Amino acid sequence: MSDYRAPVEEMRFLIEEIAGLSEIRQLPGCEEASEDVAAAILDEAAKFAGEVLSPLNRIGDKTGCRLEGDVVTTPPGWKEAYRQFCEAGWGGITAPAEFGGQGLPKALGVAVEEMWNAANMAFALGPMLTTGAVDALLTAGTPEIQALYLPKMISGEWTGTMNLTEPQAGSDLALIRTRAEPQADGSYRLYGQKIFITYGEHDLSENIIHLVLARLPDAPPGVKGISLFVVPKFLVKPDGSPGERNDVHCVSIEHKLGIHASPTCVMAYGDNGGAVGYLVGEPNSGLKYMFIMMNAARHAVGLQGVAIAERAYQQALAYARERKQGRDLASGEGPVSIDRHPDVQRMLLTIKARTEAARALAYYAAGQFDRAHHHPDAAEREAALMLGELLIPLVKGGATEMSIEATSLAVQVHGGMGYVEETGAAQHFRDARITTIYEGTTAIQANDLIGRKLMRDQGATLKRLLGMVEATCKELAASGDAELAAIGARLTKALAAWGEAARWVGENLKGNTLGVFAGSVPFLELSSRVAGGWLLAKAAQIAKRRLAEGVGNARFYQAKIASARFYADHQLPQAKALAVSIQTLEAANLTAYGPVLSAYD
Amino acid sequence: MSDYRAPVEEMRFLIEEIAGLSEIRQLPGCEEASEDVAAAILDEAAKFAGEVLSPLNRIGDKTGCRLEGDVVTTPPGWKEAYRQFCEAGWGGITAPAEFGGQGLPKALGVAVEEMWNAANMAFALGPMLTTGAVDALLTAGTPEIQALYLPKMISGEWTGTMNLTEPQAGSDLALIRTRAEPQADGSYRLYGQKIFITYGEHDLSENIIHLVLARLPDAPPGVKGISLFVVPKFLVKPDGSPGERNDVHCVSIEHKLGIHASPTCVMAYGDNGGAVGYLVGEPNSGLKYMFIMMNAARHAVGLQGVAIAERAYQQALAYARERKQGRDLASGEGPVSIDRHPDVQRMLLTIKARTEAARALAYYAAGQFDRAHHHPDAAEREAALMLGELLIPLVKGGATEMSIEATSLAVQVHGGMGYVEETGAAQHFRDARITTIYEGTTAIQANDLIGRKLMRDQGATLKRLLGMVEATCKELAASGDAELAAIGARLTKALAAWGEAARWVGENLKGNTLGVFAGSVPFLELSSRVAGGWLLAKAAQIAKRRLAEGVGNARFYQAKIASARFYADHQLPQAKALAVSIQTLEAANLTAYGPVLSAYD
Repeated sequence: MSDYRAPVEEMRFLIEEIAGLSEIRQLPGCEEASEDVAAAILDEAAKFAGEVLSPLNRIGDKTGCRLEGDVVTTPPGWKEAYRQFCEAGWGGITAPAEFGGQGLPKALGVAVEEMWNAANMAFALGPMLTTGAVDALLTAGTPEIQALYLPKMISGEWTGTMNLTEPQAGSDLALIRTRAEPQADGSYRLYGQKIFITYGEHDLSENIIHLVLARLPDAPPGVKGISLFVVPKFLVKPDGSPGERNDVHCVSIEHKLGIHASPTCVMAYGDNGGAVGYLVGEPNSGLKYMFIMMNAARHAVGLQGVAIAERAYQQALAYARERKQGRDLASGEGPVSIDRHPDVQRMLLTIKARTEAARALAYYAAGQFDRAHHHPDAAEREAALMLGELLIPLVKGGATEMSIEATSLAVQVHGGMGYVEETGAAQHFRDARITTIYEGTTAIQANDLIGRKLMRDQGATLKRLLGMVEATCKELAASGDAELAAIGARLTKALAAWGEAARWVGENLKGNTLGVFAGSVPFLELSSRVAGGWLLAKAAQIAKRRLAEGVGNARFYQAKIASARFYADHQLPQAKALAVSIQTLEAANLTAYGPVLSAYD
Repeated sequence: MSDYRAPVEEMRFLIEEIAGLSEIRQLPGCEEASEDVAAAILDEAAKFAGEVLSPLNRIGDKTGCRLEGDVVTTPPGWKEAYRQFCEAGWGGITAPAEFGGQGLPKALGVAVEEMWNAANMAFALGPMLTTGAVDALLTAGTPEIQALYLPKMISGEWTGTMNLTEPQAGSDLALIRTRAEPQADGSYRLYGQKIFITYGEHDLSENIIHLVLARLPDAPPGVKGISLFVVPKFLVKPDGSPGERNDVHCVSIEHKLGIHASPTCVMAYGDNGGAVGYLVGEPNSGLKYMFIMMNAARHAVGLQGVAIAERAYQQALAYARERKQGRDLASGEGPVSIDRHPDVQRMLLTIKARTEAARALAYYAAGQFDRAHHHPDAAEREAALMLGELLIPLVKGGATEMSIEATSLAVQVHGGMGYVEETGAAQHFRDARITTIYEGTTAIQANDLIGRKLMRDQGATLKRLLGMVEATCKELAASGDAELAAIGARLTKALAAWGEAARWVGENLKGNTLGVFAGSVPFLELSSRVAGGWLLAKAAQIAKRRLAEGVGNARFYQAKIASARFYADHQLPQAKALAVSIQTLEAANLTAYGPVLSAYD
């Protein structure tokens, strides 16, 4: 087990230069996020992540959560760490100030969020879900509900959950059956079972606020008949103090591949007379509210991908520097630490470059949401929102798929020791595996990208993004710098492949729908791969400028250029292959392959 | 949990048509492997795998092995299954008849071996290691040692182990420290600790025969001073019955990511006076003997990759047919089983096509080894041996890396259920993860490919292989069949990329050694990818012929054509990207990226 040390310099660089905090802090409402404040927050968060959360990661995995009756006990040390987390106010740094948050920009919050997840992903899931529930109430709650719940959820005294999935309704929420019956006092009684409820029950907080999708008696079938309810574990008295125990109970927890310390609960609503709930927003509009907050939740899961890849990288690098095997291929000296072997270097660089690309994209998207909230110009707000939302599936789908490969490579760097659980590398590999599944599988992200984010403006926002990448390509070509030009040459080819695939998708969406959606995940992969390479190239441009100016940490800037170069040479050439694959689904529609699937019967 | 059903039709097809059993049974010593015998063996093995081994897979994972004192207990049911395995004679079907084996060709044995591993990989490891130890004794044991040990090892009454690794000596065997001191009676006393010893201790057999690498007192340093010893758990009396307990003991077992039921032991030699051992072959020649048997062991691990991918595929397919979510994209009908969704089809086809490609390559290589042993013509024997050995790293490295992706995709098909251990999909993902590590990591395979298999004949065998692929490309182009021509067009491009990369490797091996070895794993990946596609294309050619002739199962042949097509369209375009990546390491030698690795310090 190695410790986690937050890559603060990298984070500050991306926040300021790529997410654009240097511009964002000029926007009304963002003034408090000065460079000094940002630096202080990153340093404090890094300390908390490294000293408090990271040491609990292994024990959380080993011990897991325990269910007795309907009581879930978290691993040793977790209650105390959560208490400290709340006391330091970490739960509310981006939440609105009117409810006790610090109201800081998302472009800053992302780095802090990444740190929690890198230090201890199973722990970070609790606050992540609470933030999701807070977002839902901010979106659609009445002022009364907001006043009653939000301050304590933002402070962390209470945690929140999202209850969507049922045994028969996973990716397909149209199949939800949980029902809500109106009561004379304006409240509702809920009946049904929800599964895969993260932190559905635990011992960290005095109350748990469940956000639940359910159907009203007169609801239309399908997704247009789903309403959103707030169902507290303990009913809340008008003065805000917890009252009677509600009829919602954890009936089992899952035995999972990873994130053992994050309780994944089966929740029973209304087994003893009905769970008291309150309608949030308009009837039958539950899914609409979910979609609004889902962008944030998916962004958060994408960050988990970045975080777990970073953690795995640090551990693999530490091991590679220590472990001595074999001779130096050039000098013959030996035994040498394995970080001297070219294939180990290739693996480490692959993890590092891909992690940095995914991080840059996630932070960049966060910056767009800050602009969407705070820019004084309505057209700018709209443009930023459209771009940010377009990037969500790239961040969620791209970073999480990357994290599986990255954590797998990190196991590989360890050789046989990687397969032994005590080493800790295997935990990251197991933990990462959930990220491509929850908050919408990669296929759901790809559907979102094509079926929603491209279709809603006929590809206009994507075209704008492609144009921005093209502008960077031109700058790189005209830079007069051989290294930047080499990166630019790769990026130009990759952009051409992306553009070609995007055109094909647009042209075939109507006529060859099955073909387009068969290639939707490769298209997502292609898009996030090239978009990440674009931001690494921009980072390299900035780094070159800083080196020329002679300011800052030269070693850091050289490393940024090197990872951009490595990524351009070894990750961008895949773009063309993906484009070929996507377009081939036209001629050979997957349905033609139907028989092959049953050939072994 | 789904059951395992061996894909017998696919296996028979590959054995006869791709591995060439139809030719091999004409060779002297292979006559017994008639079509009827082969069919009977496959059917019986499929029954044993499906009915006896497969049901024990989950309990093996859940229970694992238990160590008390120096006694290892296997999971419930394992002893009985192993007894049945031995009684049926499964341990010796390809072993020499003079020691009680059935002497059947490897081209047939591979399918049986695949079945054991698909049904229960942790179980299959025991017989696999025994076979490795048998090979070592066949290679270098005196007639006395062979007569004393081989019959009981081949019958399975005794099992075998391979003891190479020590804490400081994993991939780098030069660092081995275990010492062997000669005794007056011609035996030796061994002292040292070995780690990662698969089935080092267990309760399945009455004796365990350890093959151990150690140093003689006067041995030269490094790999040229390593000798091979046989060290039985119970000393063997001249009549072959087990005698006194030897001074070799299991001191701990590893807590691993997967293959929980396969005991991975730390073995202590000589803690109580010295473990009695007997020299195998010449002094200081241990590594040479290891390399001879290593090809077979690596081939076996490659087969594990095929096997676990097949098992994961079957489970994912069964789930996809049952699970109902979402609407049919074309008809709007819903909810439909998820195998109707294009992305699920893409995932299933990816697993299936890649598994079939890897299987074809593994079986093809097995056929070469049969020819190398049995062909009456010495030049043919030599050519087959060279080709078979060249393919070993492609089989081992390619199929195992594939298995990680395949088992991961199979988890993904399951959605949230895939992350729950009870489902069983996660076990395959965990089990598969070891295969790229043991018997030499993928990097070690890549070193073997370039540093040994290419260098030893200046690429002549590879050139021959490329020529064979080129001949197939020409046949496909001239076939007059649109589908075969389409496959041929993809294969031709991929072959060009392979040839280009191979030329670059050959030209740069001396001048840019670090660059070549930085790209060695991508080169292995490129080679196994295109070689697999070549054999799928050959299978499609044969299938077309059979369909035209109107013989056999038309549905099966259509499926073979479809997977060849899918693979050509979606797996072969990656060849060019890999070739670009490999050659870029020339200009930007990885050492130039050195600083990037420490940028976060």
